[in-house]
Amino acid sequence: MHTIALNATHDPSARSWVASAQAEGTDFPIQNLPYAVFRRRGEDAARWRLGVAIGDQIVDLRAVAARAPWHGNAAQALQAAAADSRLNALMALGSEAASALRRALFDALREGAAQQAVTPADLVPQADAEYDVPARIGDYTDFYTSIHHATNIGRQFRPDQPLLPNYQWVPIGYHGRASSVVVSGQSFRRPVGQSMPPGSAQPQFGASRRLDIELELGVFIGAGNALGEPVPLDAAEDHVFGLCLLNDWSARDLQGWEYQPLGPFLSKNFATTVSPWVVTMEALAPYRTAWDRPQDHPQPLPYLESAHNRAAGAFDIQLQVDLSTPRMRSAGAADATICRTSYRHAYWTLAQMVTHHTVNGCNLQPGDLLGTGTLSGPTLDQAGALIELTLGGKQPLQLPDGEQRVFLEDGDRVTLRGWCERSGAARIGFGACAGEVLPARSI
Amino acid sequence: MHTIALNATHDPSARSWVASAQAEGTDFPIQNLPYAVFRRRGEDAARWRLGVAIGDQIVDLRAVAARAPWHGNAAQALQAAAADSRLNALMALGSEAASALRRALFDALREGAAQQAVTPADLVPQADAEYDVPARIGDYTDFYTSIHHATNIGRQFRPDQPLLPNYQWVPIGYHGRASSVVVSGQSFRRPVGQSMPPGSAQPQFGASRRLDIELELGVFIGAGNALGEPVPLDAAEDHVFGLCLLNDWSARDLQGWEYQPLGPFLSKNFATTVSPWVVTMEALAPYRTAWDRPQDHPQPLPYLESAHNRAAGAFDIQLQVDLSTPRMRSAGAADATICRTSYRHAYWTLAQMVTHHTVNGCNLQPGDLLGTGTLSGPTLDQAGALIELTLGGKQPLQLPDGEQRVFLEDGDRVTLRGWCERSGAARIGFGACAGEVLPARSI
Repeated sequence: MHTIALNATHDPSARSWVASAQAEGTDFPIQNLPYAVFRRRGEDAARWRLGVAIGDQIVDLRAVAARAPWHGNAAQALQAAAADSRLNALMALGSEAASALRRALFDALREGAAQQAVTPADLVPQADAEYDVPARIGDYTDFYTSIHHATNIGRQFRPDQPLLPNYQWVPIGYHGRASSVVVSGQSFRRPVGQSMPPGSAQPQFGASRRLDIELELGVFIGAGNALGEPVPLDAAEDHVFGLCLLNDWSARDLQGWEYQPLGPFLSKNFATTVSPWVVTMEALAPYRTAWDRPQDHPQPLPYLESAHNRAAGAFDIQLQVDLSTPRMRSAGAADATICRTSYRHAYWTLAQMVTHHTVNGCNLQPGDLLGTGTLSGPTLDQAGALIELTLGGKQPLQLPDGEQRVFLEDGDRVTLRGWCERSGAARIGFGACAGEVLPARSI
Repeated sequence: MHTIALNATHDPSARSWVASAQAEGTDFPIQNLPYAVFRRRGEDAARWRLGVAIGDQIVDLRAVAARAPWHGNAAQALQAAAADSRLNALMALGSEAASALRRALFDALREGAAQQAVTPADLVPQADAEYDVPARIGDYTDFYTSIHHATNIGRQFRPDQPLLPNYQWVPIGYHGRASSVVVSGQSFRRPVGQSMPPGSAQPQFGASRRLDIELELGVFIGAGNALGEPVPLDAAEDHVFGLCLLNDWSARDLQGWEYQPLGPFLSKNFATTVSPWVVTMEALAPYRTAWDRPQDHPQPLPYLESAHNRAAGAFDIQLQVDLSTPRMRSAGAADATICRTSYRHAYWTLAQMVTHHTVNGCNLQPGDLLGTGTLSGPTLDQAGALIELTLGGKQPLQLPDGEQRVFLEDGDRVTLRGWCERSGAARIGFGACAGEVLPARSI
């Protein structure tokens, strides 16, 4: 087991020579150092390259690599990162290489550093950048790790049996669509498809009327496993590179009609939005917390059980969903926060997701994406989907100025945010994961 | 609409200067010309390249391309094919480029051709070759297009409601796992996982005891569509490169416990086997047939309906499943054929699969793989899975020499075969899609 211990890079008193890294409320202090794929706005596609966030700047890793400032693991990781246009090559090197690169970047960005390994000329303002999906995603798997979400949404689809008998035993997951994963800021069309109105004798065809969000975290796989070789629970996190925010947009009317017996398909695969910034497992180490399975629930089967997973398998990541309507924007109003919760409420841990996924021999590859599933907390204001927040569409959300929402309307913009804070540790954040609904294509 | 018409390459009297292309019962006469990714046995990974089957030989397209024998579309397609180690680049060029290359290869291989564009030195014996998965598969989607299979298997999982209400309206599909798609000849371990024995209060963990096959065709996407842009029904086949055989191995005990509410996951994603040879849409043109929806069934919604789809949307592809047990092999016995059927029985056509998949704006990419779902025909001996053939495990299959099978045992080898024959057309085939079950990894 390779558990990342706290080290100098987590020191909450550390400061950077990049002044904005000390700005009040920044997501990107020197203790974070997340990765993204970026280019300066307007550069051509060949210029997509890797960057690391520091304050309101991006460290251009290709520029740093041109000077080859380091040796050993850090140098190998830097060269792999700089040679690829996505995070895959760096991810494939595994957690020790990522850790070495983090340490080298931390030392180079620290207040008092010589500004030779990383120089001010290597910085690109985030305000001048645009982003792409961080990795070439081979496969995308979405889990269902919040028992609160599973119960809330199960109540809509199966009032007689909201929580199915397998839920407390199996970390339920299913395969999603990799090709339609888009990056924050990219808008998408409202999907068209079949739905079955209550009481109707035949389905209708048209634009979805129950377009929803799902507040999730995305988990990028680092080192893969060979086909046929399961990953034991205490090695699972060695296969995780880092986390991002993920919005699994969902058309509930399409979903209700299509999902049996093989699961959601067109109701989900029209778009999935991820944040550009991937926060590494090492950056998240200070915010680990105990994983708790209520005593009156079934306890996990042995392959999903370990002392480490019990003691520190969960992460206290604060999550928030903000909604902006066209009317709010034309009135100059701020976004309305419609949900606040934490990843710590998940019923299954990140390590349990990885181990369950591979227990049958299924192979994960660098850059593969896992979604946690909608991370609803125990109370209704902690629900991460509109179908929960509005009790299946029966109780509209009240927005400022008398506006209401049941499901998303055209022009609505949803922004997910995530951050970690804890006494004795720095506050780090995930940036934003935003998307806007365009009208359906005419049919 | 670009419908491939019959042309000189379909002439059943055409012969090749490669003598084995005229052998009785060959899958690969000059009218077929399917593509694979191959190397000579023992060559290193950098040598994976594209080949075209002719008789018992493979035309090495990289060797042909080195002489740049053609002009225009055929030359462009050949250079794209030769520069890639998988079929993706050729697939991305679309159906007209593939058609031009087919015509050029046909002319070069025809009896009496000058043997300058393709020479005997460009041929590699199939007996000396090994194969890889034909494309880098971005996403793999599995459909469920046989109503006979859906009814038979629904009876096992939901005796009270075998065929769900959406089946006759929606071409049901779900996302599968791309990373574990393997090529014919690769064996795989019996998967381990959770199942819920009847009457038990808690799940058990161990090797699957109900390991099954699924006889399917695989559909490789050629030219893709942009995110947000649906593919109309009469353009759908322009986005298909060709077909292969596909065995969607399934662990029924894992499936029964895990599949609700999000669909099959670990019960399917441990291995999916495809044949190395991809038969192009143009080669399949002579075997088109009318698509028939029984009058007393719901007729398709308009987006899934067209005159062309009615007249010629189905394909009469003969399919067969052969089983070989260790005891049969040690006795020198031939494989036992356990199923014979045809793709013409499918409830939804290939074009309907593509159009439904994209109607919500989902983007398909070159090299993506669609499975048809298990292609069971109307009678029980036409069923493409053991769970159907054995009535859910209650009626064992009788094999030669008194041996029986309910589900697969370790060492069992399953081979799928497919071919087309029709009066006035050549007989063409798909080769073999074989896999062997290895014992489960010890736990």
